[in-house]
Amino acid sequence: MVLEQLESPDPDAFVEAAKTAFRNGAMLTVEAECEVEYEGRTSGYLGPGERILVAKPDGTFLVHQPTGHKPVNWMPGGGSVSARVSEGEAVLLARRSNPTERVEARIHECYGLTRFDATDGATYEESGTEAEMHEYIAENPDVLEEGLRIVEHERETKYGFIDFYAVDGDGTPVVVEVKRIQATLNHFDQLQRYVSLYEETNDDVRGMLVAPSASERVKRALRDNGLEFVGLSEFGLDAKGSTEAKLTDF
Amino acid sequence: MVLEQLESPDPDAFVEAAKTAFRNGAMLTVEAECEVEYEGRTSGYLGPGERILVAKPDGTFLVHQPTGHKPVNWMPGGGSVSARVSEGEAVLLARRSNPTERVEARIHECYGLTRFDATDGATYEESGTEAEMHEYIAENPDVLEEGLRIVEHERETKYGFIDFYAVDGDGTPVVVEVKRIQATLNHFDQLQRYVSLYEETNDDVRGMLVAPSASERVKRALRDNGLEFVGLSEFGLDAKGSTEAKLTDF
Repeated sequence: MVLEQLESPDPDAFVEAAKTAFRNGAMLTVEAECEVEYEGRTSGYLGPGERILVAKPDGTFLVHQPTGHKPVNWMPGGGSVSARVSEGEAVLLARRSNPTERVEARIHECYGLTRFDATDGATYEESGTEAEMHEYIAENPDVLEEGLRIVEHERETKYGFIDFYAVDGDGTPVVVEVKRIQATLNHFDQLQRYVSLYEETNDDVRGMLVAPSASERVKRALRDNGLEFVGLSEFGLDAKGSTEAKLTDF
Repeated sequence: MVLEQLESPDPDAFVEAAKTAFRNGAMLTVEAECEVEYEGRTSGYLGPGERILVAKPDGTFLVHQPTGHKPVNWMPGGGSVSARVSEGEAVLLARRSNPTERVEARIHECYGLTRFDATDGATYEESGTEAEMHEYIAENPDVLEEGLRIVEHERETKYGFIDFYAVDGDGTPVVVEVKRIQATLNHFDQLQRYVSLYEETNDDVRGMLVAPSASERVKRALRDNGLEFVGLSEFGLDAKGSTEAKLTDF
């Protein structure tokens, strides 16, 4: 990881930092007042305004206005992004062929620039819905613990819905939080909030986090706070390249 | 415009800066090593990696890995983004209802954070293709100048294709660059490069930028460099909310 931040770089400093980012395969993020042109399947123009520009090592170029999840202009990967000084201003040009397209941003004023040499080998893994898991648990509470009895499914509290409110063989209340993905510290947080609600009136209340798996760190956090973990590996993750699926929304 | 950059903020400084950004309606950009969870229509998990996070004042939240033009995870506007410290780490949570969805990023290490209070009133304006304009000019060269004769359409040069290579009434060569959008300094740059090619062999060569309109600044740059502007207002921009159209690609 390498990171460099520049505040209000002049055009020359801007271009130098941008070229360094492109040379090193780093991500470049720019906060600036700029105008943007598109030329390709059509022609388009975005007048001056303050926005964020992101250039990635694969040639991806994104122009993000202050609102909206879609970039107002962009270039997919496959091409290249270059920087130059023109008429005393910095210019970022993203272009590719097949189809021949170009998005060009003229930086009237650059407020901030960040060069980020990032390494990310992770892939998004999607699993089914938690509903299936709830159904399975509701029908087979013993998979969580011998003698456990479900009292209520999705009980509302001021912190949100508790997945299952149950009682164990000794009649001790058990708050059960179910996650379809590998348990994380955020899930631990959530369970702890729910349990704290009941501890106000009953010190014995137990908290149980149910998930396909959990890291040692999460298991320790639970243990250290008197909470329990139950692994239901049969609901393990199945990577589905879901990114594609979910992104049809764009 | 307000901009604040933090390098390697600790969890408390991170959360404070993030809350300031949310309170002021600023854009927040974060370079970090983090893990991301999605819960909603499905459940999803993105393991630890170095990536960029962008939060916008309308509740938009984007997670961008080092490659690809699509965010690996995101939340559209309409909801809210919040920051907190949990188990000694900073956490960004983006959530909305209808449908109930949440994207939560746990920051294992933050390398950089930028708070950008941006103002952008511009809308992307798209016009038709340049082809229509080329056709019109090829058939009516007089609209550019009385007695102008087109010698060649799209003549290749080492700098790319010249839209029209023509000669005027006195037989002087004229390099014509056609733009479908309001002329910009980038277009002036391009025309100047083309003209410089011919000046090597002929000092008299003329350069003509043809566009629906041009700012005073662009007209001055052309004038100061012995180049000409011809406005074809009949090809003026017609805003088409093209952003929607173009973004069906996402």
